[in-house]
Amino acid sequence: MHFITYVREGIEEIGLFSEDRNKVIALRDVLGKDIPANMIDFISYCNENIIGEIKGNLENKNNKEELFVDVKDVKICAPIPYPRRNVICLGLNYKDHADELKDSMAAKIPEVPVYFGKMASYIIGPEDEVNSHPGVTEAIDYEVELAVIIGKEGSNISPEDVEEYIFGYSILNDFSARDLQQKHTQWIKGKSLDTFTAMGPCILHKSLAPLPIELNLSCKVNGELRQNSNTRNLIFDIPYIISDLSKGMTLKPGDIIATGTPAGVGMGFQPPKLIKSGDVVTCSIEKIGELTNRLK
Amino acid sequence: MHFITYVREGIEEIGLFSEDRNKVIALRDVLGKDIPANMIDFISYCNENIIGEIKGNLENKNNKEELFVDVKDVKICAPIPYPRRNVICLGLNYKDHADELKDSMAAKIPEVPVYFGKMASYIIGPEDEVNSHPGVTEAIDYEVELAVIIGKEGSNISPEDVEEYIFGYSILNDFSARDLQQKHTQWIKGKSLDTFTAMGPCILHKSLAPLPIELNLSCKVNGELRQNSNTRNLIFDIPYIISDLSKGMTLKPGDIIATGTPAGVGMGFQPPKLIKSGDVVTCSIEKIGELTNRLK
Repeated sequence: MHFITYVREGIEEIGLFSEDRNKVIALRDVLGKDIPANMIDFISYCNENIIGEIKGNLENKNNKEELFVDVKDVKICAPIPYPRRNVICLGLNYKDHADELKDSMAAKIPEVPVYFGKMASYIIGPEDEVNSHPGVTEAIDYEVELAVIIGKEGSNISPEDVEEYIFGYSILNDFSARDLQQKHTQWIKGKSLDTFTAMGPCILHKSLAPLPIELNLSCKVNGELRQNSNTRNLIFDIPYIISDLSKGMTLKPGDIIATGTPAGVGMGFQPPKLIKSGDVVTCSIEKIGELTNRLK
Repeated sequence: MHFITYVREGIEEIGLFSEDRNKVIALRDVLGKDIPANMIDFISYCNENIIGEIKGNLENKNNKEELFVDVKDVKICAPIPYPRRNVICLGLNYKDHADELKDSMAAKIPEVPVYFGKMASYIIGPEDEVNSHPGVTEAIDYEVELAVIIGKEGSNISPEDVEEYIFGYSILNDFSARDLQQKHTQWIKGKSLDTFTAMGPCILHKSLAPLPIELNLSCKVNGELRQNSNTRNLIFDIPYIISDLSKGMTLKPGDIIATGTPAGVGMGFQPPKLIKSGDVVTCSIEKIGELTNRLK
């Protein structure tokens, strides 16, 4: 099950990709009933019974074939275009990435998770362009990350129980203005320029990727492979992150946690390979898909 | 005009304090029409005409006297209990505060604003208690701050135009877990424990406090004066902050920007005077009022 948000004839819908991803279907058509209209509310509403109903109804294909719409006739958005609050990100959560920023950004391999927030009132999707913000930044970088989508409210979650609180996984490109990030010491400003959070194309339901998550992830710039790793290389793994974050801090359905990026970001090269107007960045994660964005 | 959010007979309302603050009135009663039901939507809807209508109708007191309710019969909440996204905070924005944290937290007087985000799915108000999070933190501190409430969407705002984008001002107590703040290097986790953002009791409309803002602010712990300064001592002033933040990053109606705290936080004393269960913290800012919270 690959959950999506899309716009068809001007109306935002939540739905699913078909298995071959050539078609989409509205969740209310799959379920044959009224459901919450946006992904965050749907995630709050969703439970194992609903997931069971979706699976059952999809297997019953004969009833539904005519309800699928060609993917070319819709716009695929970020699965959560309007997040409830800032995306929670982890910095320096792959060893090779912490190493590559040792000289340029004085990075060290962290002993505890480095959390920061990324403000995005609108998360761009796989068909949206990234604003290059001339005059504001001259050092835009890319970072492919596995994003965890929280499914159930919780705090002080034990590592063993974490999967129960997850809804699924998506791809997030954590675009960063390296000049602002370094200048302001705390990272929020350099991470939060408009259009700097890209997510998509879908949320892979957790039932299709049980913990421990071991998925290949990669990032290409104009077709050139820059990042290539596997989520098994996370320094702090998903059970640790969710459990640690939730100590004294309630996580909510729809919260997005970006788990960090592996080596190969532009800033890690000598000289840096930052991105500029016209460049096309493609992030891929096994089982989830591809997220491609062009810099305006 | 002192805008408030309050609960009366189980229903959340937005309204105004009476001049003596002994009574409250619902904004829909002042305006005699249906208006958005929560403060963020009201701020988006509000404009100079609406402010004019409110003023005119309040002066016409004879019509409204019976619509005021005793403040004792309602619960005053944070004026924005459910923020749209994380509170944007400034660190080290008073010289004397940066100085006092030189030894304990390696603070320096910043050359550019130090922004960070404070995650709060629910902002506590003047009648709520702060959770002391035993087992999660052993170093809770207080910080009185003037909060700016954004009134109008904008980006790349010039310093001269900033006032046009402001709705008003409130008091924010930026409770902080100093141990987590230091351990994680980026500050979000130590700033975002549940109940660690307190705001209130009201939003002072900008018409009652034109720029430049020069308001006394102070903080007492169990009656002992700890912080005492004036917002004229901000290193980066409000026009600078809003203009700088909005470069490439759209500010939205209802966004909350906490402008930093002066000297006298617990961590600034030798030995530190951190707060513990049972302590009562009162933040005051001239023209806005008092915000008192007790640690559970």
